[in-house]
Amino acid sequence: MASTLELLEEHRLFGGWQQRWRHLSSTLNCTMTFSIFLPAPQGESPPPVVWFLSGLTCTDENFTTKSGAQRVAAELGLVLVMPDTSPRGAEVPNEEAYDLGQGAGFYLNATQAPWATHFQMYDYLSAELPALIADNFNISDRQAIAGHSMGGHGAIMLALRNPGRFVSASALAPIVNPCTVPWGEKAFRAYLGDDRQAWLPYDSCWLMRQATQTLPILIDQGDSDQFLADQLHPERLEEIAIEKNWPLTLRIQPGYDHSYYFIASFIEDHLRFHATHLRA
Amino acid sequence: MASTLELLEEHRLFGGWQQRWRHLSSTLNCTMTFSIFLPAPQGESPPPVVWFLSGLTCTDENFTTKSGAQRVAAELGLVLVMPDTSPRGAEVPNEEAYDLGQGAGFYLNATQAPWATHFQMYDYLSAELPALIADNFNISDRQAIAGHSMGGHGAIMLALRNPGRFVSASALAPIVNPCTVPWGEKAFRAYLGDDRQAWLPYDSCWLMRQATQTLPILIDQGDSDQFLADQLHPERLEEIAIEKNWPLTLRIQPGYDHSYYFIASFIEDHLRFHATHLRA
Repeated sequence: MASTLELLEEHRLFGGWQQRWRHLSSTLNCTMTFSIFLPAPQGESPPPVVWFLSGLTCTDENFTTKSGAQRVAAELGLVLVMPDTSPRGAEVPNEEAYDLGQGAGFYLNATQAPWATHFQMYDYLSAELPALIADNFNISDRQAIAGHSMGGHGAIMLALRNPGRFVSASALAPIVNPCTVPWGEKAFRAYLGDDRQAWLPYDSCWLMRQATQTLPILIDQGDSDQFLADQLHPERLEEIAIEKNWPLTLRIQPGYDHSYYFIASFIEDHLRFHATHLRA
Repeated sequence: MASTLELLEEHRLFGGWQQRWRHLSSTLNCTMTFSIFLPAPQGESPPPVVWFLSGLTCTDENFTTKSGAQRVAAELGLVLVMPDTSPRGAEVPNEEAYDLGQGAGFYLNATQAPWATHFQMYDYLSAELPALIADNFNISDRQAIAGHSMGGHGAIMLALRNPGRFVSASALAPIVNPCTVPWGEKAFRAYLGDDRQAWLPYDSCWLMRQATQTLPILIDQGDSDQFLADQLHPERLEEIAIEKNWPLTLRIQPGYDHSYYFIASFIEDHLRFHATHLRA
């Protein structure tokens, strides 16, 4: 049965429309919201899509209100889809922690109690939500994916696990090797259990080693990011990319931190990168 | 005695620096914060300044995080100063209303109890804060001023009352005739008392009628703004400008509302307008 979409907000923005929608997710067993930017039509063909996955503590609204991405999307004729970062609601389990539970879904399918009933973000983002968007909006199947921090993990991981689905992937300050860093180890142990073998299909470093089909990847990383040394390690993914001759560009941005100010400063480059591949 | 500035936050942004500062205001008798964007240096001369005054319910952070203005300021070499909208703190009187008390200072000097002790935003913005900024940052005395809604009222009113201080003024969805609209009547009665004569020096329509020295003014107004009919009336200021041959441009933007999405869509035009006059 198709979900019913309920429009919560609509705003004119850069000549296009910023909308926020609510729907009942059968995958997550709860009500979800997502935001979408629809540029003014440019020609006859349906516009390509860039997904943006956000980081810990975010909803669909952080990137929507703070990134300034819609200005560039309007110019380039790109639809932007901004999902939430976890299942939501009073019936959904939570922790008094910013890095586990609501706001911290890690874009995976949980197998452990009490999380498994709702925390199925991998299926939500790889199947239910794309189908819902395709059914309800006039979009192309040319799609790219981007994200920040936990959402950078989500973006690269989803792209690597679904060859051919996205023409390009990009990330700002992504968690590329969650199996070996404190954020990832805490979340994966809670959601997936103690067996580290079960964690590997959500680890971008492991996935890139296994991959047989490449796609272009752009990563920006601030060198004043407070999480760089302990949580992020983009050089590990770069090393694998070099070994495999993978088209990955890692740019270190001097003085930038982990905040939305960093995202705002570089999101234009990411959308232009994706547009080049989406229009190719 | 000079205020001491305490740096609360600093972020690299678009090649410049976004900072948030705290200081004790002797004018407002409380601790205040402001935000400032410093672009990367362009040449030898100190950069000109654009002040941005925000609307009801805002702090110094709303425009800072949502407008995207720093991208354009970085390109044009403009310093942006974002003050708070009222005195703040547990000792500062407040109301359980979004349009009176903290977050709703209306950029005036209150004369009535319990407001007069702290609500001296006109003096704070026309004297104390400009001096503090000039003493602590390398800036030009070429300055312009802009604002949104209540802050659009503040920007135009401050420019009209201080001829020669600003080279240009601009506003998004400003309250131009506060003496005759519900927001203004409620605030002015509380802060200034029942005598409407005392309200006039804070009314841009009245001020423009009295003015003998012009400055260029740009106003943008969305025609889907939910406050347009009852609170804003930009056509009243336009009529006076036409009568007086005043250089005022009022642009009606179809489909846009009162939100930060409207601000984000048009702030670039405002900064380019100011840069033209600041560099002239």
